[in-house]
Amino acid sequence: MSTATCIFCDPSGESVVWSDPRCRVLHVTDADFAGFCRVVWNEHVTEFSDLDETDRSHLMKIVAAVERSLRSMLSPHKMNIASLGNQTPHLHWHVIPRYRDDSHYPNAIWAAPQREARKRALADDFSARLRKAIESALV
Amino acid sequence: MSTATCIFCDPSGESVVWSDPRCRVLHVTDADFAGFCRVVWNEHVTEFSDLDETDRSHLMKIVAAVERSLRSMLSPHKMNIASLGNQTPHLHWHVIPRYRDDSHYPNAIWAAPQREARKRALADDFSARLRKAIESALV
Repeated sequence: MSTATCIFCDPSGESVVWSDPRCRVLHVTDADFAGFCRVVWNEHVTEFSDLDETDRSHLMKIVAAVERSLRSMLSPHKMNIASLGNQTPHLHWHVIPRYRDDSHYPNAIWAAPQREARKRALADDFSARLRKAIESALV
Repeated sequence: MSTATCIFCDPSGESVVWSDPRCRVLHVTDADFAGFCRVVWNEHVTEFSDLDETDRSHLMKIVAAVERSLRSMLSPHKMNIASLGNQTPHLHWHVIPRYRDDSHYPNAIWAAPQREARKRALADDFSARLRKAIESALV
Protein backbone atom coordinates (compact mmCIF):
# COMPACT_ATOMS: atom_id res chain seq x y z
CA MET A 1 0.00 0.00 0.00
CA SER A 2 1.41 3.38 -0.94
CA THR A 3 0.99 6.24 1.47
CA ALA A 4 -1.18 7.99 -1.13
CA THR A 5 -3.87 5.32 -0.77
CA CYS A 6 -3.62 4.97 3.01
CA ILE A 7 -6.64 6.37 4.84
CA PHE A 8 -4.45 7.32 7.80
CA CYS A 9 -1.97 9.18 5.54
CA ASP A 10 -4.73 10.89 3.60
CA PRO A 11 -7.50 11.16 6.20
CA SER A 12 -10.89 12.74 5.87
CA GLY A 13 -13.58 13.21 8.47
CA GLU A 14 -11.44 12.13 11.39
CA SER A 15 -12.61 13.23 14.83
CA VAL A 16 -9.26 14.12 16.37
CA VAL A 17 -9.51 14.31 20.15
CA TRP A 18 -5.82 14.86 20.94
CA SER A 19 -2.64 15.03 18.92
CA ASP A 20 1.05 15.74 19.05
CA PRO A 21 3.69 15.67 16.28
CA ARG A 22 4.00 11.87 16.47
CA CYS A 23 0.49 10.53 16.89
CA ARG A 24 -3.16 11.39 17.21
CA VAL A 25 -6.17 10.07 19.11
CA LEU A 26 -9.41 9.65 17.17
CA HIS A 27 -12.88 9.15 18.56
CA VAL A 28 -14.61 6.49 16.48
CA THR A 29 -18.35 6.95 16.28
CA ASP A 30 -19.66 3.42 16.75
CA ALA A 31 -23.19 2.98 18.05
CA ASP A 32 -22.37 -0.44 19.50
CA PHE A 33 -19.10 0.53 21.19
CA ALA A 34 -19.44 3.94 22.77
CA GLY A 35 -16.11 5.52 23.52
CA PHE A 36 -14.18 3.50 20.90
CA CYS A 37 -10.93 5.35 20.15
CA ARG A 38 -8.00 4.84 17.83
CA VAL A 39 -4.45 5.97 18.42
CA VAL A 40 -2.77 6.50 15.03
CA TRP A 41 0.95 6.89 14.46
CA ASN A 42 1.30 9.84 12.09
CA GLU A 43 4.20 8.50 10.02
CA HIS A 44 3.34 5.64 7.64
CA VAL A 45 4.77 2.66 9.51
CA THR A 46 3.32 -0.84 9.20
CA GLU A 47 4.24 -2.75 12.33
CA PHE A 48 4.66 -1.85 16.00
CA SER A 49 8.18 -3.28 15.96
CA ASP A 50 9.13 -0.92 13.11
CA LEU A 51 9.34 1.80 15.77
CA ASP A 52 12.42 2.25 17.91
CA GLU A 53 12.08 1.96 21.66
CA THR A 54 11.66 5.71 22.24
CA ASP A 55 8.80 5.97 19.77
CA ARG A 56 7.20 2.72 20.99
CA SER A 57 7.24 3.99 24.57
CA HIS A 58 5.75 7.30 23.49
CA LEU A 59 2.97 5.61 21.54
CA MET A 60 2.09 3.21 24.36
CA LYS A 61 2.12 6.07 26.86
CA ILE A 62 -0.63 7.68 24.77
CA VAL A 63 -2.49 4.37 24.43
CA ALA A 64 -2.36 3.88 28.20
CA ALA A 65 -3.52 7.47 28.78
CA VAL A 66 -6.49 6.90 26.47
CA GLU A 67 -7.28 3.60 28.18
CA ARG A 68 -7.07 5.15 31.64
CA SER A 69 -9.20 8.11 30.57
CA LEU A 70 -11.91 5.88 29.11
CA ARG A 71 -11.92 3.71 32.21
CA SER A 72 -12.30 6.75 34.42
CA MET A 73 -15.02 8.34 32.29
CA LEU A 74 -17.07 5.28 31.30
CA SER A 75 -16.35 2.53 33.89
CA PRO A 76 -16.37 -0.32 31.37
CA HIS A 77 -16.16 -3.92 32.53
CA LYS A 78 -13.01 -4.47 30.49
CA MET A 79 -10.76 -2.63 28.07
CA ASN A 80 -9.60 -4.15 24.79
CA ILE A 81 -6.52 -2.91 22.92
CA ALA A 82 -5.44 -4.18 19.51
CA SER A 83 -3.12 -3.34 16.64
CA LEU A 84 -4.25 -5.42 13.66
CA GLY A 85 -4.01 -3.43 10.41
CA ASN A 86 -4.63 -6.30 8.01
CA GLN A 87 -6.89 -4.07 5.94
CA THR A 88 -5.16 -0.78 6.74
CA PRO A 89 -1.47 -1.56 7.30
CA HIS A 90 -0.63 1.76 8.95
CA LEU A 91 0.23 1.46 12.64
CA HIS A 92 -2.80 2.23 14.79
CA TRP A 93 -4.24 0.95 18.05
CA HIS A 94 -7.90 0.28 18.75
CA VAL A 95 -8.81 1.16 22.34
CA ILE A 96 -12.28 -0.17 23.10
CA PRO A 97 -14.37 -0.01 26.28
CA ARG A 98 -16.28 -3.28 26.69
CA TYR A 99 -19.41 -4.07 28.68
CA ARG A 100 -21.05 -7.36 29.59
CA ASP A 101 -24.19 -6.24 27.77
CA ASP A 102 -22.48 -4.97 24.61
CA SER A 103 -23.21 -6.74 21.33
CA HIS A 104 -20.18 -9.10 21.40
CA TYR A 105 -19.11 -9.60 25.01
CA PRO A 106 -17.19 -11.66 26.05
CA ASN A 107 -15.93 -12.17 22.53
CA ALA A 108 -13.80 -9.79 20.51
CA ILE A 109 -15.69 -7.05 18.68
CA TRP A 110 -14.60 -8.67 15.40
CA ALA A 111 -16.40 -11.93 16.24
CA ALA A 112 -20.07 -12.68 15.56
CA PRO A 113 -22.46 -10.58 17.66
CA GLN A 114 -24.03 -12.31 20.66
CA ARG A 115 -26.99 -10.01 21.19
CA GLU A 116 -28.37 -6.58 20.43
CA ALA A 117 -26.19 -4.09 22.22
CA ARG A 118 -27.48 -1.99 25.05
CA LYS A 119 -27.00 1.49 23.61
CA ARG A 120 -24.90 3.87 25.63
CA ALA A 121 -25.24 7.56 24.87
CA LEU A 122 -22.17 9.72 25.32
CA ALA A 123 -22.40 13.24 26.70
CA ASP A 124 -22.33 15.98 24.06
CA ASP A 125 -19.03 17.17 25.44
CA PHE A 126 -17.50 13.67 25.48
CA SER A 127 -14.62 14.53 23.13
CA ALA A 128 -13.72 17.69 25.01
CA ARG A 129 -13.77 15.83 28.34
CA LEU A 130 -11.73 12.98 26.88
CA ARG A 131 -9.10 15.43 25.65
CA LYS A 132 -8.82 16.91 29.14
CA ALA A 133 -8.65 13.46 30.72
CA ILE A 134 -5.85 12.43 28.32
CA GLU A 135 -3.94 15.60 29.10
CA SER A 136 -4.33 14.96 32.83
CA ALA A 137 -3.23 11.34 32.44
CA LEU A 138 -0.09 12.45 30.64
CA VAL A 139 1.05 14.84 33.37
CA MET B 1 -11.97 -13.43 39.21
CA SER B 2 -9.72 -14.47 42.07
CA THR B 3 -6.13 -15.30 41.32
CA ALA B 4 -6.83 -18.89 42.41
CA THR B 5 -9.14 -19.40 39.43
CA CYS B 6 -7.01 -17.53 36.89
CA ILE B 7 -5.34 -19.81 34.34
CA PHE B 8 -2.38 -17.45 34.09
CA CYS B 9 -1.91 -17.40 37.89
CA ASP B 10 -2.32 -21.17 38.17
CA PRO B 11 -1.02 -22.35 34.82
CA SER B 12 -0.65 -25.89 33.56
CA GLY B 13 0.82 -27.13 30.33
CA GLU B 14 2.23 -23.78 29.24
CA SER B 15 4.99 -23.87 26.65
CA VAL B 16 7.25 -21.16 28.05
CA VAL B 17 9.71 -19.92 25.43
CA TRP B 18 11.30 -17.09 27.40
CA SER B 19 10.75 -15.55 30.82
CA ASP B 20 12.06 -13.06 33.32
CA PRO B 21 10.75 -12.14 36.79
CA ARG B 22 8.05 -9.87 35.35
CA CYS B 23 6.64 -11.70 32.35
CA ARG B 24 6.80 -14.80 30.19
CA VAL B 25 6.44 -15.65 26.51
CA LEU B 26 4.31 -18.67 25.63
CA HIS B 27 4.17 -20.48 22.32
CA VAL B 28 0.53 -21.27 21.60
CA THR B 29 0.06 -24.44 19.58
CA ASP B 30 -2.57 -23.43 17.03
CA ALA B 31 -2.76 -25.37 13.79
CA ASP B 32 -4.30 -22.41 11.95
CA PHE B 33 -1.91 -19.74 13.24
CA ALA B 34 1.61 -21.13 13.33
CA GLY B 35 3.91 -19.10 15.54
CA PHE B 36 1.09 -17.66 17.69
CA CYS B 37 2.62 -16.43 20.97
CA ARG B 38 1.33 -14.86 24.14
CA VAL B 39 3.22 -12.50 26.42
CA VAL B 40 1.81 -12.85 29.93
CA TRP B 41 2.44 -10.45 32.79
CA ASN B 42 3.28 -12.64 35.79
CA GLU B 43 1.49 -10.59 38.45
CA HIS B 44 -2.31 -10.72 38.37
CA VAL B 45 -3.16 -7.37 36.82
CA THR B 46 -6.28 -6.80 34.73
CA GLU B 47 -5.61 -3.87 32.43
CA PHE B 48 -2.56 -2.54 30.57
CA SER B 49 -3.03 0.86 32.22
CA ASP B 50 -2.84 -0.77 35.67
CA LEU B 51 0.92 -0.95 35.11
CA ASP B 52 3.18 2.01 35.78
CA GLU B 53 5.24 3.42 32.92
CA THR B 54 8.36 1.41 33.77
CA ASP B 55 6.49 -1.89 33.74
CA ARG B 56 4.49 -0.96 30.63
CA SER B 57 7.68 -0.14 28.77
CA HIS B 58 9.26 -3.40 29.88
CA LEU B 59 6.25 -5.44 28.79
CA MET B 60 6.02 -3.75 25.39
CA LYS B 61 9.76 -4.19 24.86
CA ILE B 62 9.18 -7.93 25.21
CA VAL B 63 6.09 -7.80 22.95
CA ALA B 64 8.11 -5.94 20.30
CA ALA B 65 10.98 -8.42 20.63
CA VAL B 66 8.56 -11.31 20.09
CA GLU B 67 6.97 -9.55 17.12
CA ARG B 68 10.34 -8.78 15.56
CA SER B 69 11.54 -12.35 16.12
CA LEU B 70 8.43 -13.86 14.54
CA ARG B 71 8.70 -11.50 11.56
CA SER B 72 12.31 -12.48 11.06
CA MET B 73 11.70 -16.22 11.42
CA LEU B 74 8.37 -16.58 9.61
CA SER B 75 8.03 -13.61 7.22
CA PRO B 76 4.29 -13.14 7.76
CA HIS B 77 2.30 -10.69 5.66
CA LYS B 78 1.20 -8.85 8.80
CA MET B 79 1.51 -9.05 12.54
CA ASN B 80 -1.47 -8.70 14.87
CA ILE B 81 -1.13 -7.73 18.55
CA ALA B 82 -4.01 -7.63 21.00
CA SER B 83 -4.74 -7.44 24.70
CA LEU B 84 -8.38 -8.42 25.18
CA GLY B 85 -8.84 -10.56 28.31
CA ASN B 86 -12.63 -10.52 28.39
CA GLN B 87 -12.66 -14.21 29.28
CA THR B 88 -9.33 -14.25 31.14
CA PRO B 89 -8.90 -10.83 32.73
CA HIS B 90 -5.19 -11.23 33.47
CA LEU B 91 -2.96 -8.94 31.41
CA HIS B 92 -1.59 -10.80 28.39
CA TRP B 93 -0.80 -9.92 24.79
CA HIS B 94 -1.55 -12.08 21.76
CA VAL B 95 1.19 -11.79 19.13
CA ILE B 96 0.02 -13.44 15.93
CA PRO B 97 1.73 -13.84 12.54
CA ARG B 98 -0.85 -13.44 9.78
CA TYR B 99 -0.79 -14.64 6.15
CA ARG B 100 -3.03 -13.83 3.23
CA ASP B 101 -3.92 -17.52 2.96
CA ASP B 102 -4.59 -18.14 6.63
CA SER B 103 -8.12 -19.08 7.69
CA HIS B 104 -9.31 -15.56 8.60
CA TYR B 105 -7.24 -13.03 6.64
CA PRO B 106 -7.80 -10.10 6.30
CA ASN B 107 -10.16 -10.30 9.25
CA ALA B 108 -9.19 -10.71 12.88
CA ILE B 109 -8.61 -14.28 14.04
CA TRP B 110 -11.67 -13.93 16.28
CA ALA B 111 -13.97 -13.30 13.29
CA ALA B 112 -15.64 -15.98 11.17
CA PRO B 113 -13.19 -18.04 9.09
CA GLN B 114 -12.92 -17.14 5.41
CA ARG B 115 -11.38 -20.37 4.12
CA GLU B 116 -9.51 -23.47 5.12
CA ALA B 117 -6.10 -22.36 6.29
CA ARG B 118 -2.98 -23.28 4.43
CA LYS B 119 -1.14 -25.29 7.08
CA ARG B 120 2.33 -24.09 8.00
CA ALA B 121 4.59 -26.53 9.77
CA LEU B 122 7.10 -25.14 12.22
CA ALA B 123 10.59 -26.56 12.57
CA ASP B 124 11.03 -28.97 15.48
CA ASP B 125 13.41 -26.52 17.09
CA PHE B 126 11.08 -23.54 16.60
CA SER B 127 10.78 -22.73 20.32
CA ALA B 128 14.53 -22.91 20.88
CA ARG B 129 15.18 -20.68 17.87
CA LEU B 130 12.49 -18.25 18.98
CA ARG B 131 14.05 -18.00 22.43
CA LYS B 132 17.42 -17.15 20.85
CA ALA B 133 15.80 -14.61 18.53
CA ILE B 134 14.03 -12.91 21.45
CA GLU B 135 17.28 -12.77 23.40
CA SER B 136 19.05 -11.24 20.37
CA ALA B 137 16.24 -8.71 19.87
CA LEU B 138 16.55 -7.61 23.49
CA VAL B 139 20.29 -6.88 23.33
